[in-house]
Amino acid sequence: MSRHDQYREEVAGRANVEDTPELVEYYGDLKRKGAGALWTVANKIEPWEPASSSVPMLWRYRDLRADVLRSLDLVTPEKAGRRVIYLDNPGRSDVAAAVGWIYAGLQVMRPGERASAHRHSASAIRFIMEGSGAYTVVDGHKMTLGANDFVLTPNGTWHEHAVSEDGSECIWQDGLDIPFVNAMEANFYEVHPDLQQAVTHPVNDMTRTWGNPGLKPGGGKWEKGYSPLFKYEWDRTHEALHNLAGVCDGSPHDGILMEYVNPVTNGPVMQTMGASMQMLRPGEKTKAHRHTGSYLYQVCKGSGHSVINGQRFDWNERDIFCVPSWAWHEHANASASEEACLFCLNDLPVMRALGLYREEALAENDGHQPVTV
Amino acid sequence: MSRHDQYREEVAGRANVEDTPELVEYYGDLKRKGAGALWTVANKIEPWEPASSSVPMLWRYRDLRADVLRSLDLVTPEKAGRRVIYLDNPGRSDVAAAVGWIYAGLQVMRPGERASAHRHSASAIRFIMEGSGAYTVVDGHKMTLGANDFVLTPNGTWHEHAVSEDGSECIWQDGLDIPFVNAMEANFYEVHPDLQQAVTHPVNDMTRTWGNPGLKPGGGKWEKGYSPLFKYEWDRTHEALHNLAGVCDGSPHDGILMEYVNPVTNGPVMQTMGASMQMLRPGEKTKAHRHTGSYLYQVCKGSGHSVINGQRFDWNERDIFCVPSWAWHEHANASASEEACLFCLNDLPVMRALGLYREEALAENDGHQPVTV
Amino acid sequence: MSRHDQYREEVAGRANVEDTPELVEYYGDLKRKGAGALWTVANKIEPWEPASSSVPMLWRYRDLRADVLRSLDLVTPEKAGRRVIYLDNPGRSDVAAAVGWIYAGLQVMRPGERASAHRHSASAIRFIMEGSGAYTVVDGHKMTLGANDFVLTPNGTWHEHAVSEDGSECIWQDGLDIPFVNAMEANFYEVHPDLQQAVTHPVNDMTRTWGNPGLKPGGGKWEKGYSPLFKYEWDRTHEALHNLAGVCDGSPHDGILMEYVNPVTNGPVMQTMGASMQMLRPGEKTKAHRHTGSYLYQVCKGSGHSVINGQRFDWNERDIFCVPSWAWHEHANASASEEACLFCLNDLPVMRALGLYREEALAENDGHQPVTV
Amino acid sequence: MSRHDQYREEVAGRANVEDTPELVEYYGDLKRKGAGALWTVANKIEPWEPASSSVPMLWRYRDLRADVLRSLDLVTPEKAGRRVIYLDNPGRSDVAAAVGWIYAGLQVMRPGERASAHRHSASAIRFIMEGSGAYTVVDGHKMTLGANDFVLTPNGTWHEHAVSEDGSECIWQDGLDIPFVNAMEANFYEVHPDLQQAVTHPVNDMTRTWGNPGLKPGGGKWEKGYSPLFKYEWDRTHEALHNLAGVCDGSPHDGILMEYVNPVTNGPVMQTMGASMQMLRPGEKTKAHRHTGSYLYQVCKGSGHSVINGQRFDWNERDIFCVPSWAWHEHANASASEEACLFCLNDLPVMRALGLYREEALAENDGHQPVTV
Ligand SMILES: [Fe+2]
Ligand SMILES: [Fe+2]
Ligand SMILES: [Fe+2]
Ligand SMILES: [Fe+2]
Ligand SMILES: [Fe+2]
Ligand SMILES: [Fe+2]
Ligand SMILES: [Fe+2]
Ligand SMILES: [Fe+2]
Repeated sequence: MSRHDQYREEVAGRANVEDTPELVEYYGDLKRKGAGALWTVANKIEPWEPASSSVPMLWRYRDLRADVLRSLDLVTPEKAGRRVIYLDNPGRSDVAAAVGWIYAGLQVMRPGERASAHRHSASAIRFIMEGSGAYTVVDGHKMTLGANDFVLTPNGTWHEHAVSEDGSECIWQDGLDIPFVNAMEANFYEVHPDLQQAVTHPVNDMTRTWGNPGLKPGGGKWEKGYSPLFKYEWDRTHEALHNLAGVCDGSPHDGILMEYVNPVTNGPVMQTMGASMQMLRPGEKTKAHRHTGSYLYQVCKGSGHSVINGQRFDWNERDIFCVPSWAWHEHANASASEEACLFCLNDLPVMRALGLYREEALAENDGHQPVTV
Repeated sequence: MSRHDQYREEVAGRANVEDTPELVEYYGDLKRKGAGALWTVANKIEPWEPASSSVPMLWRYRDLRADVLRSLDLVTPEKAGRRVIYLDNPGRSDVAAAVGWIYAGLQVMRPGERASAHRHSASAIRFIMEGSGAYTVVDGHKMTLGANDFVLTPNGTWHEHAVSEDGSECIWQDGLDIPFVNAMEANFYEVHPDLQQAVTHPVNDMTRTWGNPGLKPGGGKWEKGYSPLFKYEWDRTHEALHNLAGVCDGSPHDGILMEYVNPVTNGPVMQTMGASMQMLRPGEKTKAHRHTGSYLYQVCKGSGHSVINGQRFDWNERDIFCVPSWAWHEHANASASEEACLFCLNDLPVMRALGLYREEALAENDGHQPVTV
Repeated sequence: MSRHDQYREEVAGRANVEDTPELVEYYGDLKRKGAGALWTVANKIEPWEPASSSVPMLWRYRDLRADVLRSLDLVTPEKAGRRVIYLDNPGRSDVAAAVGWIYAGLQVMRPGERASAHRHSASAIRFIMEGSGAYTVVDGHKMTLGANDFVLTPNGTWHEHAVSEDGSECIWQDGLDIPFVNAMEANFYEVHPDLQQAVTHPVNDMTRTWGNPGLKPGGGKWEKGYSPLFKYEWDRTHEALHNLAGVCDGSPHDGILMEYVNPVTNGPVMQTMGASMQMLRPGEKTKAHRHTGSYLYQVCKGSGHSVINGQRFDWNERDIFCVPSWAWHEHANASASEEACLFCLNDLPVMRALGLYREEALAENDGHQPVTV
Repeated sequence: MSRHDQYREEVAGRANVEDTPELVEYYGDLKRKGAGALWTVANKIEPWEPASSSVPMLWRYRDLRADVLRSLDLVTPEKAGRRVIYLDNPGRSDVAAAVGWIYAGLQVMRPGERASAHRHSASAIRFIMEGSGAYTVVDGHKMTLGANDFVLTPNGTWHEHAVSEDGSECIWQDGLDIPFVNAMEANFYEVHPDLQQAVTHPVNDMTRTWGNPGLKPGGGKWEKGYSPLFKYEWDRTHEALHNLAGVCDGSPHDGILMEYVNPVTNGPVMQTMGASMQMLRPGEKTKAHRHTGSYLYQVCKGSGHSVINGQRFDWNERDIFCVPSWAWHEHANASASEEACLFCLNDLPVMRALGLYREEALAENDGHQPVTV
């Protein structure tokens, strides 16, 4: 940077200092002492509002699926660790994020394969896209998984994914806060000493113990930072959406939306990542709003489109798209007869825990953005 | 009380003062000033351990049912307010309690009847025993109720019970903290200005909104001191007991027990009254323990017996029995092939919130009491 | 009770059933089965508003002080346990309470005396009235105490009171929730196996560790149900009242009032008993209000009067008076030049934790009660 | 990046895939679709443990002070907004951070100057280094400030700094989470419509209301995400350190340390930034440990040195130094007779709220690092 006055603004209360030879020399002097003059960067580091470095975009499943499957032949699990194609947002390539500080990848596994057990400070959500027989072991608890189910592998838990011998090739979406935990300089990684862990509890015991609405096991205690309901099932979620749809109007911005929660706290499923599932009713078209936080959607059912910062993205089942922080967005179901369902992975728990969440509805044009692209 | 030294104990640290003429005169002098000498009552008011004034007892449904039904003809709802036979523990007649500070009554209502709407500081649980078509309206929310379902009418909520025209005669158990709230000198009562309230929400909206395990409605807030899940259903509870039974051994004292909770806090359904449902598996016989708090059981399914402070009580479906504070108790299922289920109403939320809960297992005799009566 | 219809009310929604021979026979039949007809007691147990059984009253210190001192010669600590004159509200003699469920007594101790160590489920506040050299040991922490200081001896803590050899005769007020804990049937009592406990921490360590505003000890954890600040000192309290008086108008009902709190939770000092100190500024006369809960005041400074349910009570330093639940009350400082300070012991933590607190200001007569007595 | 296999590791469970022409073509294909192969970056983004990008360093006050003062003549407040020299860690120049995601600057102001009022989502701590007459207005509350006092200007509050006419030139350290809030893409900035705000409360009212240990104002409510104690004073902090030193041994790693807390929650003063003050007693030399989170120290009193990741930094009063995440560090007081005090600004609240805090003591060499530089 040769000039130091490129961020000047002519607004009372903002920095507006022109470079002079004396000042430039002063700046150089400061630089040598590990310092700088705030007014040269103040307007840059104190923006009027957020401008995300993430690019709104959509990943078409029909484009990526073949690549994902091809990895089965290109690399072995032993060499690759995991066969995963990750989503690489052009604005976030430096941190391998799909949007904001969220990593996402599509992983494939053959029947009978079982990944090596490990743990890390990053937290993950594994959301099943296709195939049968998938299961995951988390700290000795084995959970079986079908399409649109997901499992948590929270910060610090031993975990490993697998597909049973009698299953089929499975593809799922991994969502992790790896970029965030790296940015916080707090990521630790450990391979399990035995490379596999023992299953020490009955299958699906956590959902059977903690997944009963309005009931808790007598004497049961759970004080960890994440949900004891390690697995969230599609059937119950889908039923819940219809339960809710029958008794309320829903949100003008999201239709019928349920947040996945830790049943012990009614808070987020993990401390750093949240998730929700929403239903756009037949013909439903929502109004635009924007909010802080980063959001990665996967289409679980139906087809439609979303307008993000004025750009239209048409989506079909299994497509994935992102909404960056403070980007305007609205959704529309393409069908007049079928519902559409969107799964959303996000960092809302971080935004809320730290007081950084803010939201705004679009006032103009009856709440709809002009589509510019 | 003519003597003042009746509570003497010969133990270091305890009061042991004999009456003398001088002291008795002193006591009289204090009495006139609205005072007394602590050592005359210290050992009485600081007992070594609780001795409940409630009597362990069982109310047989086959004894009471006819009396309950008879009230249909004896009094009108207009005159009686509600046709209720209340359980009158001989040790607690002064406060009309079934056990401790808990009131309980059996109420009956004909199809087409609807009680007048009112509210009070006491909190209630209405647990359906027999009949069809029962429903309750709480603050504008209408809930339909079947056998073994229950509804909350918490402190301060407008409420009214009814049976629909196409239903049958209904009998239910009312459980309230009336004696406790009276003892706390905090009870207020109000009749609804219109004697009936309007139903302002879709039927059963609260269970459909808040009764989805691991999910909460987007943007939904609930900050009241009681559960938004106004109704708790038997089907889901029964299923939950079996879910839990499949993945854990249960408690040596209670078999398979689930506590009813507020899904927002995972705490009790109301601030002053809690409830649980437990299953004694075929042939199950639990070990004795004792704890503070007062407990009122209703047999929802099966038959068996409980031993309470050495006294055996045999029970059948719909019988009600109580366990006073700090009374030893153990339960047994009479059947080797059928499960038995016990609903329990209690003041555990009070004991826990105030740090007064204490528990002890019976060490001797492999955990079983000698049956003395 | 020969009649069963003594509580009849001619109000829609209330019970209004006249005794008939058939009904009286029915009632007798129910009685034999341990039951009763709700409509015979409904209006009694569901009052329109609380009517406290406690009598508003004032205990004059100049009346009681001599009696307290006389106990020094009348009984030995070995025989009496403690030399205490307790306040015996005529409406609460059955439970030895000063008001509601609160016990209070005046205790006296000679220099060099040390009570035997014990613990119980009841929680206590020891508030120093006169004398020097008093100290208390709580779970190994020794706290020194001067006039208007108080110490907590919470539920379950080992404790013992003493006066050092170089002190003077000390009189203090004990306030306990004994009647409440007994009513809850949850009181346990234990004498220390050694009759005395060792002092295992530096003197006053808890106030030095936890009594620093806006600061907590690095790595310090405190998760018990009571305040780690075992002692609350008059100097700091008095200073706080003046701090607050300088920056706010105070309450129309209480003048300048500070609640004693647990610094870790900002909640009450113990789960079952709370305390506050309030200052009536020179010439201040508050307006009447009423609220649920029971309150016992001690005059720490100045003189004045309170009007309680229309009855005027004039008070001087060290006098004690009570305000029963839902009783109207207002206070006045008699001096135009000196402040008056009132210490208040109460069961607000219970009322608040259980959702039973309610408050109302007197609307008529500019907020002042007509004085009827 | 021309090669894709630069992060290979020969460890079971880690990625170890060599580039082949086929794979490289595959990678290019993925890139065009906004995707990548995880195994090419897995070992990079899942490190074994954190390696901070921040450089441990010390800013000598005697070096920077002249530069800070020089800014008084170089720029006007109108043009510069604020005259601030910020600390520019060479590893964090891209985000203008002193360490991790923490910004810090030294600001200077002449008597009679008053900055323009504004607000932003970033939260700040203003810690006074020298001069008299400094004050800050936060949401209408004016706080006066002396050396080693600090004031909070939390997320979303209107604020402005000033020096009174009768004061002297003041220098203070600003500490903000600007880089973090920018990284979270959640920063908003607003200039006050009047450029100045009115003082609407008595001076220092918040410390007088909320700064009384173990006491809270009657009826006082505070539910914001930051401390109502806007100002933390040196005198009380210093006294607290000595209070604590008198009754405990302190920490082997930190000597006598007090954390500044929100008195309502006992949690951090703001949701995203915390602070502590610690005293190294005469001759004290602590043992090394490391933990996640970023830390910026200012020397308030005394002199000594710290060893950070094996590098020794000698410090004197007002010097500032940083400890990056997971860097080993230990401190030593140079004096055998005088205490040394260190103020520390950090992001511990973030690390703790999100479950990312981890700590480790140095086991070897009696807890002391070999000094390599
Ligand atoms: Fe993993
Ligand atoms: Fe949205
Ligand atoms: Fe009722
Ligand atoms: Fe039990
Ligand atoms: Fe005691
Ligand atoms: Fe009052
Ligand atoms: Fe600012
Ligand atoms: Fe440290």
